[in-house]
Amino acid sequence: MSDRFTPSPDDKFSFGLWTVGWQGADVFGPASRDLLDPVEATYQLAELGAAAVTFHDDDLLPDEAQREATLDRFRTALSDTGLVVEMVTTNTFSDPVFKEGAITANNREVRRYALAKVLRNIDLAASLGAKTFVMWGGREGAEHGASKNVGAAMDRFRDALDTVCAYVLEQGYDMRFALEPKPNEPRGDILLPSIGHAIALISELEHPEMVGLNPEVGHEEMAGLNFAQGIAQALWHGKLFHVDLNGQHGPRFDQDLRFGAGNLRGAFWTVDALETGGYEGPRHFDYKPPRTEDMAGVWETAAACMRNYLILKDKAAAFRADPEVVGALEAARVPELSEPTLAPGETLADLRAESYDIEGLATTGMAFERLDQLAMEHLLGVR
Amino acid sequence: MSDRFTPSPDDKFSFGLWTVGWQGADVFGPASRDLLDPVEATYQLAELGAAAVTFHDDDLLPDEAQREATLDRFRTALSDTGLVVEMVTTNTFSDPVFKEGAITANNREVRRYALAKVLRNIDLAASLGAKTFVMWGGREGAEHGASKNVGAAMDRFRDALDTVCAYVLEQGYDMRFALEPKPNEPRGDILLPSIGHAIALISELEHPEMVGLNPEVGHEEMAGLNFAQGIAQALWHGKLFHVDLNGQHGPRFDQDLRFGAGNLRGAFWTVDALETGGYEGPRHFDYKPPRTEDMAGVWETAAACMRNYLILKDKAAAFRADPEVVGALEAARVPELSEPTLAPGETLADLRAESYDIEGLATTGMAFERLDQLAMEHLLGVR
Amino acid sequence: MSDRFTPSPDDKFSFGLWTVGWQGADVFGPASRDLLDPVEATYQLAELGAAAVTFHDDDLLPDEAQREATLDRFRTALSDTGLVVEMVTTNTFSDPVFKEGAITANNREVRRYALAKVLRNIDLAASLGAKTFVMWGGREGAEHGASKNVGAAMDRFRDALDTVCAYVLEQGYDMRFALEPKPNEPRGDILLPSIGHAIALISELEHPEMVGLNPEVGHEEMAGLNFAQGIAQALWHGKLFHVDLNGQHGPRFDQDLRFGAGNLRGAFWTVDALETGGYEGPRHFDYKPPRTEDMAGVWETAAACMRNYLILKDKAAAFRADPEVVGALEAARVPELSEPTLAPGETLADLRAESYDIEGLATTGMAFERLDQLAMEHLLGVR
Amino acid sequence: MSDRFTPSPDDKFSFGLWTVGWQGADVFGPASRDLLDPVEATYQLAELGAAAVTFHDDDLLPDEAQREATLDRFRTALSDTGLVVEMVTTNTFSDPVFKEGAITANNREVRRYALAKVLRNIDLAASLGAKTFVMWGGREGAEHGASKNVGAAMDRFRDALDTVCAYVLEQGYDMRFALEPKPNEPRGDILLPSIGHAIALISELEHPEMVGLNPEVGHEEMAGLNFAQGIAQALWHGKLFHVDLNGQHGPRFDQDLRFGAGNLRGAFWTVDALETGGYEGPRHFDYKPPRTEDMAGVWETAAACMRNYLILKDKAAAFRADPEVVGALEAARVPELSEPTLAPGETLADLRAESYDIEGLATTGMAFERLDQLAMEHLLGVR
Repeated sequence: MSDRFTPSPDDKFSFGLWTVGWQGADVFGPASRDLLDPVEATYQLAELGAAAVTFHDDDLLPDEAQREATLDRFRTALSDTGLVVEMVTTNTFSDPVFKEGAITANNREVRRYALAKVLRNIDLAASLGAKTFVMWGGREGAEHGASKNVGAAMDRFRDALDTVCAYVLEQGYDMRFALEPKPNEPRGDILLPSIGHAIALISELEHPEMVGLNPEVGHEEMAGLNFAQGIAQALWHGKLFHVDLNGQHGPRFDQDLRFGAGNLRGAFWTVDALETGGYEGPRHFDYKPPRTEDMAGVWETAAACMRNYLILKDKAAAFRADPEVVGALEAARVPELSEPTLAPGETLADLRAESYDIEGLATTGMAFERLDQLAMEHLLGVR
Repeated sequence: MSDRFTPSPDDKFSFGLWTVGWQGADVFGPASRDLLDPVEATYQLAELGAAAVTFHDDDLLPDEAQREATLDRFRTALSDTGLVVEMVTTNTFSDPVFKEGAITANNREVRRYALAKVLRNIDLAASLGAKTFVMWGGREGAEHGASKNVGAAMDRFRDALDTVCAYVLEQGYDMRFALEPKPNEPRGDILLPSIGHAIALISELEHPEMVGLNPEVGHEEMAGLNFAQGIAQALWHGKLFHVDLNGQHGPRFDQDLRFGAGNLRGAFWTVDALETGGYEGPRHFDYKPPRTEDMAGVWETAAACMRNYLILKDKAAAFRADPEVVGALEAARVPELSEPTLAPGETLADLRAESYDIEGLATTGMAFERLDQLAMEHLLGVR
Repeated sequence: MSDRFTPSPDDKFSFGLWTVGWQGADVFGPASRDLLDPVEATYQLAELGAAAVTFHDDDLLPDEAQREATLDRFRTALSDTGLVVEMVTTNTFSDPVFKEGAITANNREVRRYALAKVLRNIDLAASLGAKTFVMWGGREGAEHGASKNVGAAMDRFRDALDTVCAYVLEQGYDMRFALEPKPNEPRGDILLPSIGHAIALISELEHPEMVGLNPEVGHEEMAGLNFAQGIAQALWHGKLFHVDLNGQHGPRFDQDLRFGAGNLRGAFWTVDALETGGYEGPRHFDYKPPRTEDMAGVWETAAACMRNYLILKDKAAAFRADPEVVGALEAARVPELSEPTLAPGETLADLRAESYDIEGLATTGMAFERLDQLAMEHLLGVR
Repeated sequence: MSDRFTPSPDDKFSFGLWTVGWQGADVFGPASRDLLDPVEATYQLAELGAAAVTFHDDDLLPDEAQREATLDRFRTALSDTGLVVEMVTTNTFSDPVFKEGAITANNREVRRYALAKVLRNIDLAASLGAKTFVMWGGREGAEHGASKNVGAAMDRFRDALDTVCAYVLEQGYDMRFALEPKPNEPRGDILLPSIGHAIALISELEHPEMVGLNPEVGHEEMAGLNFAQGIAQALWHGKLFHVDLNGQHGPRFDQDLRFGAGNLRGAFWTVDALETGGYEGPRHFDYKPPRTEDMAGVWETAAACMRNYLILKDKAAAFRADPEVVGALEAARVPELSEPTLAPGETLADLRAESYDIEGLATTGMAFERLDQLAMEHLLGVR
């Protein structure tokens, strides 16, 4: 059905080729779907209204012998469809060589190989015009307290980022890096487990301005954290370079549900944060169509990710524009938080000399529930 | 029983007066124990082997009329026992005036009152010789997506920290600040939910060198995060200014068990991280003796916190000294992670030109399980 | 606003007097609201459209001296408003006497006192016409492995239930019991932590037909369990005697949000399960208006609980009636699950002799995502 | 090292062939180890001190053409080593044919094929002398509210169990069934998510005495539940037919760590519950050697599972035998819970007529912390 929730390239929707291409292999069973040709997927995503695709080297180019041929076909597909490659990332987690990490592997040879793999892929990304290079350290971490020296691992992480930044500068590529935090799975405890930990690391880099984040809804929610609040902090730091949208049901295995599924109210606030917080990047989906679906079902999920985003965007805009909401925000004193606590020129002595009506302040209702219920009713479409 | 696990002031154990003073009131019932005189608690903690105490203003000085009298008695107790006040913190979360936050309350009057309360307490802390001032923003946050503008809240948080740092500098106090992260409870989602988020904020301050962290075991574990790994990252940033030791069983309500209870293996790695990672500060306990205990039980828990720390410290030292462990670390290539990935003078071209034995690297076992089992057996006392 | 989502007594909405009466005391701070007269609350709930109220003895009758006077006023309120008391429960968790349990306390005197308190309250419940008596064993459990003999505790739980059932039969009361499971908080691990554990216990009783469940949304979700699936199993066992509706954000402290807040999609499926699964009982809310609200905010939350239920009921009915949904259910083979696996008269030998097109079955898509997206769009009000 | 923690067949240790045989394929990467010949594994496990092995049909007999040859070799291995097959289970979750369930699949053909597969494997189990047949419904469940009719699924689950029980009776096999609960992964929400839900289902069967449980440590802990408490309830119902021992770190993906790793204090209480609660069955390990290990590491983990069990068994016995513990249990009034609440012949009128010293009972300390600390010190080996 074509309606106001039908996506167009202006909506900046982007998909990892590995999403629709996921074959359904998990810890408890092998693939349930055939291999999807990534070039075919590109045409199909364009058809559905996407603006861009992204990939890991291994998604697009699993076979070295076919590398140039596949790249040719892929470039043709991009040209035919008008899609762009907005982001590229490197798979440094699937091959058993990375079983104990990649850029923070104890084994120095593995680290060197990982870095070489990343560099080669940066060149490819640049050649395809990708402006963002994501680094997800899926196997950087440990299940065992002594097996990973965290301080040394942080050193290696920092060094690797400094190295790739220097390389990009030297090559004159127009490219920034985005770290993707995750608390666990497939490793017991992954380094940079949350948005905050990754921003912290960036503050120690040589070129902090070149490195930001690619947070994923489900990854933060696996730690019980509020994703909208997390990306709002990332935006505050100027570090929301990219985003991975999907769905999750709290602390458990990484579900990678289509966007909207899982924590729907969280998805509403996520869209609100992206749309009102100054985020200009792609709306990128990183999810897994359930193993129960055939390819028709896969394309349903891809369409639904975009459709749900547009529905939520529409509702979030209506919420913010509703005069009753404006009044409710006022009643909840939300705009007042933008006023500095100290008046211009005011001294701490002034502030301390003042007397406060503690009892009065304590008994003043904040009217947060009414505001929240207004949001609920916009979401449910009953206003 | 007096043995090698009997604490002495050299062990730098410190207790919040609110810990042994917790009366047992929770969401489902009122106090089960009488009010404990904080001065009496000070004597008792000294008796048990503690080196220091800490407090929130409201713990020590609930009654304004008794303020000076209580302070006199408290100073006498410190002098009698040799205990020091190593840290002070302000209660900006109990009084209903702070029901929607303190330094990030929407209500500007509340923010001003909170700041005044903090400043007054900084003066008190300085007068008592405390070198660390902890700030836990227990009510900074929200249950509702729209009720808190996260960007504005981060501005206010930053401003407040800049203000108190400037104040301390101006007064010439020898004092640093330590932020205490927590993901949730009592608010639905608390700002600065993890170690990482707090370090990230610090990187935006005017005086980042004056502000660090006071992470709490249970708070990180409520988000399913590995505490030892978290403090190792904090140490790497030079930000572990203080620590709150207790016990927790993963994502659920804040249990505040005595240290050692809950995740015991995590406690072992926590002690190992503190003892080998260069942490020089107090070993501070922040826990709640269960509501089932009378005062005799309360003192049992306080003694057990220290005893468990010393037992674990002993075991961690034995683990690190064991030649078999040294060999196992070598076999697991742990020291190799301290070697930079690039050799001095090596170029990326060199690195990329190299050929890697991927198959060989992939099939090399890491021997992490053997190493971990050695740690287990040290912990269990069977080696 | 009066519209089709305005509740009436026919909707069978019921509120615990302790919900709107919650004063906001939690582990980190005292009450933020004044005591609400329970009789006044009754009038107000009637005004908002509720059909019934429920209470713990201590909510309605905290003061023994005022017992008869309060009961008189309460009966008048019921008569004035037409509200009924559909359920009564006993507070066996707040008073410190119950700090280690009530009917499974180690201390036999405590158990005896608890049982006497329950019996007295059963008489009161019967005198007020309540047909359901809820038992939430909030403090039955332990934080310590050895402190509670689980087998003995199960014996005492069973005995207590057999005793109260026999008492009700003997008195000729028209009353059934409903157990309320919860995994933890305020105790570290509570006995009967889930819907399943409680049904299991019931199977061992002398009068299993008299005992069922009062599951609470948030309690199951604190264990990461799917509430709609849980009550569907309870309905299958004929054991859904009552229900506690509220909101929660997964494994963390017990949030007791208003119904709809928290896991909204879960709330939709919960309403669907109640409305299509044969549940005839009250729609009972057990939630806590946040500490940020004054009394106006409290009444907003009470109204919102009912309104959200009615909105979701409307949407669930529209979903089930939508011909496209009927088709999608068929495509997902949902009705086929109601066909027995063996045909009438068919032997296992027949079944085993058959040959199965495993490859064909494996590659057949289940079209679950399309069905789920239809539900999403009904929920969002865009169909 | 051979010492008192060296296992012998008398210890009844049993291993799934799929444990040491796990090749390391997960959602994020393929196998990191070669296929292990299950017959070779049998010899190796015997060498390490195991008493028994267990398997899924697909573990032992992946290749139909080799079925008889492999069975011959396997029988020889059993005869050579003295190992027995104590349990057999059917893989109804890996093949994509089971992607939406097996005995509760919507697709009736799938259900029929699943049942035939189970029946065939029951015959094999009987022929090998296995007394327990485990059923883990790993794919029985849903990610989508409408895609699974839970009531109908419970009907099919019950029917299937009634069918297989009747078959076993008819064939005269000496065999019982054990259900294995799990809350989620690989499905979003699995039917029978906890120990309690499975016992509840059993109460509705035609032959409830033939069906019990095979609970797994990690599965219950993924829901934040206390495993020792769970199996104690299962033992109380007479339903602990088998057990799966491993390690887990709370709500997150299924880690399947070696026994002892993860929640060590939980492991101590688990061993205590098994050893003192009347459990006579095998001590069966179901874990996954981490992907980082080669085969030498795999065998380390298998040995460590047994060794950790024996260490904990030794400590649990010492704890129970320690006179100080006996005194502490008395002080905590643990034995008092075994006294019925009502005295023989006592009426409820007697009980209600009594007066209770509520204040005195409320202020009596329970001394639970001292008891728990004694357990801690036994565990740590410092008593």
